[in-house]
Amino acid sequence: MQSMTLSSNYPELSPKYDFYSDIPVTYLAKKYGTPMIAYSMKRLQDNISRLKYAFLNSQIKIHYAVKANYNPYIVSRIIKNSVGIDAANLNEAKLAIQLGSHASDIIATPNNLSGRELLELSKLNIAINFDHEGQMQLIKDSLPETVSFRINPGIGMGEFAGITTAGHNVKFGISPEDAIKAYASARKYGAKRFGIHMMTGSNVLDPEFFKESTERFFSIATKISDSLGIEFSFLDIGGGFGVPYNLYTEPLDIDKTAGYIKDNFLKYRNRGYFKGSDLIIEPGRYIISDAAILISEITSMKNSDHRIIGLDTGMNTMIRIPLYGAHHEIKISGYSDQDYNTIFDVVGQVCENTDYLTHDILLPEAHIGDLAIILNAGAYVSSMASNYNLLGSPAEVAIERGKDKLIRKHSTLDTMLHGFLM
Amino acid sequence: MQSMTLSSNYPELSPKYDFYSDIPVTYLAKKYGTPMIAYSMKRLQDNISRLKYAFLNSQIKIHYAVKANYNPYIVSRIIKNSVGIDAANLNEAKLAIQLGSHASDIIATPNNLSGRELLELSKLNIAINFDHEGQMQLIKDSLPETVSFRINPGIGMGEFAGITTAGHNVKFGISPEDAIKAYASARKYGAKRFGIHMMTGSNVLDPEFFKESTERFFSIATKISDSLGIEFSFLDIGGGFGVPYNLYTEPLDIDKTAGYIKDNFLKYRNRGYFKGSDLIIEPGRYIISDAAILISEITSMKNSDHRIIGLDTGMNTMIRIPLYGAHHEIKISGYSDQDYNTIFDVVGQVCENTDYLTHDILLPEAHIGDLAIILNAGAYVSSMASNYNLLGSPAEVAIERGKDKLIRKHSTLDTMLHGFLM
Repeated sequence: MQSMTLSSNYPELSPKYDFYSDIPVTYLAKKYGTPMIAYSMKRLQDNISRLKYAFLNSQIKIHYAVKANYNPYIVSRIIKNSVGIDAANLNEAKLAIQLGSHASDIIATPNNLSGRELLELSKLNIAINFDHEGQMQLIKDSLPETVSFRINPGIGMGEFAGITTAGHNVKFGISPEDAIKAYASARKYGAKRFGIHMMTGSNVLDPEFFKESTERFFSIATKISDSLGIEFSFLDIGGGFGVPYNLYTEPLDIDKTAGYIKDNFLKYRNRGYFKGSDLIIEPGRYIISDAAILISEITSMKNSDHRIIGLDTGMNTMIRIPLYGAHHEIKISGYSDQDYNTIFDVVGQVCENTDYLTHDILLPEAHIGDLAIILNAGAYVSSMASNYNLLGSPAEVAIERGKDKLIRKHSTLDTMLHGFLM
Repeated sequence: MQSMTLSSNYPELSPKYDFYSDIPVTYLAKKYGTPMIAYSMKRLQDNISRLKYAFLNSQIKIHYAVKANYNPYIVSRIIKNSVGIDAANLNEAKLAIQLGSHASDIIATPNNLSGRELLELSKLNIAINFDHEGQMQLIKDSLPETVSFRINPGIGMGEFAGITTAGHNVKFGISPEDAIKAYASARKYGAKRFGIHMMTGSNVLDPEFFKESTERFFSIATKISDSLGIEFSFLDIGGGFGVPYNLYTEPLDIDKTAGYIKDNFLKYRNRGYFKGSDLIIEPGRYIISDAAILISEITSMKNSDHRIIGLDTGMNTMIRIPLYGAHHEIKISGYSDQDYNTIFDVVGQVCENTDYLTHDILLPEAHIGDLAIILNAGAYVSSMASNYNLLGSPAEVAIERGKDKLIRKHSTLDTMLHGFLM
């Protein structure tokens, strides 16, 4: 296959990174201040459309994983596209309801929630993918109508160990054997309908993984179904649909991936299983990651034993870089490809040495005041940001049809001190 | 040397972890909800007293590193102890001023600040430890009265690579040779007084490191002083004073450490240097880390390929565990030492597998509803917390003379959505 070109990954970013969705990044930076996150609503829509198209003619239901980005404007837009919600807990479910989701379009996959919170989810009549029987037991007298368990199918895959969520040494899910006991208990406690869930990892770019994991998952589901004589209202295969964080990495072939999943599903349907079952997917990153850029200003050019570019952002916003060793492409606005000829480290404003945004990449001989563009800033950036060093969260702006709209104010010292008492 | 006993590390925590400063943790958990952080104001005071006593009869000035914990109640109390402030940037400096610090008691050590922010610091007449000459050049026409540079003395030490802040491959500071040029520039631009700074690492437990690093630092300072004929108003040796995160690790011998530093300082004073110089230290962790515990409720007991205890907190609050591989002791309230006989993993509520609080530690056969106590929760916990998964920050409570006082409200969905616009 051909290697990716820039334009196909970031169709709305100009080759010199000076324009984004027909709006100059210099204009955005001046209007809103840096650092700021700019979302392309068109890219967001395109990502949803591509997913929907890939799964056309299947009983698929898409549930957006709110944990990737909980900005209400973003979540609201996703809901308006008839996309359901994958909620990690009560707060994420409540947010979705506030934004117009129906309880029937929300599935919660909580981990170690308290009985009180599980009970609230149940009262909202939100289907719960329980992590294990013990969590279900906490509300056995008040189960939601649909009870589901998270299966660990024994294989997992992720870009990093920390986001590989099945296989060995993971905190999530139960074995197929334990699942049979758990469903039997749930039936005993009055569960009316059943679902089954897996989430095997995150940011997977290989369609074959989805082929293998769903085959295994559907096979497990049929065994549970046969063993207990239950039908599944839904089979929730989780997310994991990856995006390239490197401009020259192939994107996930979503049509091929969807084809594998649909074929596997159909195979079992042809054997008489899953007749009334919805197939659920839980994309988060796939929908929002490459729909945003982080625009930051260069505040320092330093010659040390390395050449170092300093930005007015850092690990407070981009914790996934030091946490996972993640790579994010960084471009400087206004320079051509041939200008990227000098090796730099890029660092942020945080007072610790963890605060590298990247090591040893080719960048232009830039200047203080130039704008650095950090790609793939839509997922697990804003939602994981902290107020460390009281630096505050970036402003967030939605770009659509050549117009910009503020959807999150930049934190100030005052807003960061909200909730503290003297 | 004898290995540490529990009581000397956590004098106010009962052996069964059921009482804290004469207040039962069960009472605190019930009153404020879990997770919550409880601060012992006595321990905070003791830590400050111990530091002050160790450096008695020296020209030492203690500047608290706000980045360790910016809770205004905590910072305010530290300021009331006649402790100055080490601010990482403009917001931290502004907070200190709001809380009663005088500009002359604040030293800023910013990294990659914009010219605008550096200018504001300068207008507040706060001394700045510039990272390098380029940062100083940004405000060369409006320098603060005291200009200081951060020296990389060529050695660094830290518990983890990410918090080792000098030596090779660090983003901070300049070489002694570059420092001479930088001070010459600053003098040309009208700087009236000079300081000199280093910060070589964090959480160091070996007094010998402080002996070696300060010897090197003072030697560099004399060379710069000789070379340019300038006197230093202050010599800021940074922080790095460690605390044990393991109950059986020796604490830093602060008297020995202070003795080494004072001896080195005196040696150079006896040679005619540093007559009018203040000696600055910047402890953060040492003052606040072991003055707090995180109280969390057990929400799940799970038997998987490992035995797993699930808590109602996680990496959203304790990011330093997955980020650095840091260890925090975890105890369960109400059990005796001999009950700690079963190997568990401890995990949190966050929907990713990074969310382990510890692997393979001995804990009692606990129950859902029991309280888990995470030690050393005072530094780099609250200040690094995020709203990831919309789980929110814990309530924070100050304990003093048997009384409890809420100093931070638990985040709610509403407070977490503050600043977002539809």
